[in-house]
Amino acid sequence: MRTLVTGGAGFVGVNIVEQLLNEGSVVVVYDRQPFPLTACETAERHRERLHIVVGDVTDEVRLKAVSKQHDIDRLVHAAVITADAAREGAEPGRIVDVNVRGTTNALSAARECRCGRFVYVGSGQAYGKTHDEGVRLHEERSPSRPADIYGISKFAAEQVALRLGELWALDVICIRLGSVLGPWEGDTGVRDMLSPYFQVAMRALRGETAILPAKMVWRDWIYSRDAADGIVRALCAVAPSHRLYHLASGLDWQGTFAGWCSMLQDKYPAFSWRLAAEGDQPNVSFVLPRDRAPMDVSRIMQDLGFRPRFGPVEAHQDYGQWIVDHEVWLLAEAKAYR
Amino acid sequence: MRTLVTGGAGFVGVNIVEQLLNEGSVVVVYDRQPFPLTACETAERHRERLHIVVGDVTDEVRLKAVSKQHDIDRLVHAAVITADAAREGAEPGRIVDVNVRGTTNALSAARECRCGRFVYVGSGQAYGKTHDEGVRLHEERSPSRPADIYGISKFAAEQVALRLGELWALDVICIRLGSVLGPWEGDTGVRDMLSPYFQVAMRALRGETAILPAKMVWRDWIYSRDAADGIVRALCAVAPSHRLYHLASGLDWQGTFAGWCSMLQDKYPAFSWRLAAEGDQPNVSFVLPRDRAPMDVSRIMQDLGFRPRFGPVEAHQDYGQWIVDHEVWLLAEAKAYR
Repeated sequence: MRTLVTGGAGFVGVNIVEQLLNEGSVVVVYDRQPFPLTACETAERHRERLHIVVGDVTDEVRLKAVSKQHDIDRLVHAAVITADAAREGAEPGRIVDVNVRGTTNALSAARECRCGRFVYVGSGQAYGKTHDEGVRLHEERSPSRPADIYGISKFAAEQVALRLGELWALDVICIRLGSVLGPWEGDTGVRDMLSPYFQVAMRALRGETAILPAKMVWRDWIYSRDAADGIVRALCAVAPSHRLYHLASGLDWQGTFAGWCSMLQDKYPAFSWRLAAEGDQPNVSFVLPRDRAPMDVSRIMQDLGFRPRFGPVEAHQDYGQWIVDHEVWLLAEAKAYR
Repeated sequence: MRTLVTGGAGFVGVNIVEQLLNEGSVVVVYDRQPFPLTACETAERHRERLHIVVGDVTDEVRLKAVSKQHDIDRLVHAAVITADAAREGAEPGRIVDVNVRGTTNALSAARECRCGRFVYVGSGQAYGKTHDEGVRLHEERSPSRPADIYGISKFAAEQVALRLGELWALDVICIRLGSVLGPWEGDTGVRDMLSPYFQVAMRALRGETAILPAKMVWRDWIYSRDAADGIVRALCAVAPSHRLYHLASGLDWQGTFAGWCSMLQDKYPAFSWRLAAEGDQPNVSFVLPRDRAPMDVSRIMQDLGFRPRFGPVEAHQDYGQWIVDHEVWLLAEAKAYR
């Protein structure tokens, strides 16, 4: 198989690329950012099957030319701008171009190459305000009320992908991904909402103090290696029953974040952490200020055989070791958490 | 007041321009298509207050320059591609560019000119599949499940407008418009879904036979002059309580279409019409193949004092006379219904 991954040098993207390389696929990374080649053992090990192309998803002509040149037969569309409110206000047009128009470009490229499968990496944030309701979200029954341009654009692009799949008889599967933590998270310039796991890890590496918000909000956490596993399952599934799947661990991570901080403190003794006391200003943020309702993950478990390999304990252990092994990349390339 | 109207040479756009000119505003039409100047008495009468600029909403630089040059203080964003399935499949990227990216461009132009109000002309088609449920749709309570790229893009653009209104403190009002009939409907190259009123009128002008589908689907019809009235009310409202309003007549037009055909037959004796019998192929289509649930219009009536002036009887009479008065434009400029 020959798989093109847009956004393949991004957080979730690199995890997908690793998984695909391990499974024997030829992989074409199409990304504006450089791929973390020297830091990525899997990539080095399978260098002959990895093609890295610098390109923008808004450049339809180039994306199509690259897709044809490499004769791809599958496409994973993971390129995205994960914008916060500041970027929404500053460059809404660019977010629309990358997140929505970039998706029609990727779909067109897949169509021209007669790809056997197109996977769209969407987001649970497509649900938006629905999250207030507190019920477990279901792929078909729960409506979307996206509240910010990121969520609006992710919902629109996902729906466009499903619609063009119908119109073009293109085999499209869409994923609504939970909040991801784990290897290859970094501040790549297109991710404004960095996970608290990453924020605290960077403070640990620098020997600083992390001040956590007193209240942790609920999130559908999923470890990045599990996210890649679910996405590659969607890419390979022979006759999936549905076109839209939630992808999260389905586990409750509440109350486990202190364990992450303690483990980092063991590895980096100069690091310390505390919960923000009254009047104390947290220096770690939780992306969105409120809880989201959990996504029902029974569909992807039943249909695609997905099982999370990483709960909080396994994720902390694996990610902690990964951070120790990738200190150089994290300090040099993953940039500061400011 | 100095009002820029994107899509001001389009169907609903010309009606808005007429209304604004009649109310004394300076009007800047920004449209790719030529404005029907020679056919439009209102425009001729107020020619000194009407500025016609040929431009594309995807051209952000030009739209901003024109807005600044004319020192606009209000903007109505009515430019849109109303796509059918064929166009969705053929140029989905262009639909996204015009309908979504065009909206961020118009919002940016309004912001740079410090406009006091921005009105987004959206569509009831943002509801999409929700229409199957048969309950009266409400602006806040009814979720959107847009089913085609037109509906997806109109919903996304509307939500982006509301969001940027918040982020930029720009006074944005969004309208979800019903199905429009009346003066200035034409095949302008960006409207694939022409109303059955227009389709039959063109057959009448040419002395042909109209074969109607046996079953008429339910629609939130609104006469184009009423649509313009509601949109201009949204533009002028001093302190509206909401940011999102339905705009339709709220009247039941079921069973009235035969009256339209009969009236045209009186005016154009060579024209005939009939309901399609068993095995008969209709040559008039009803845009979407199924009923839509009606939109609740109590909010716009209460808040903005909107009242439809045209029910089916008044609309048929006014539109019938308008067609007789504009035969030359209809046959030469409004193009064929093919």
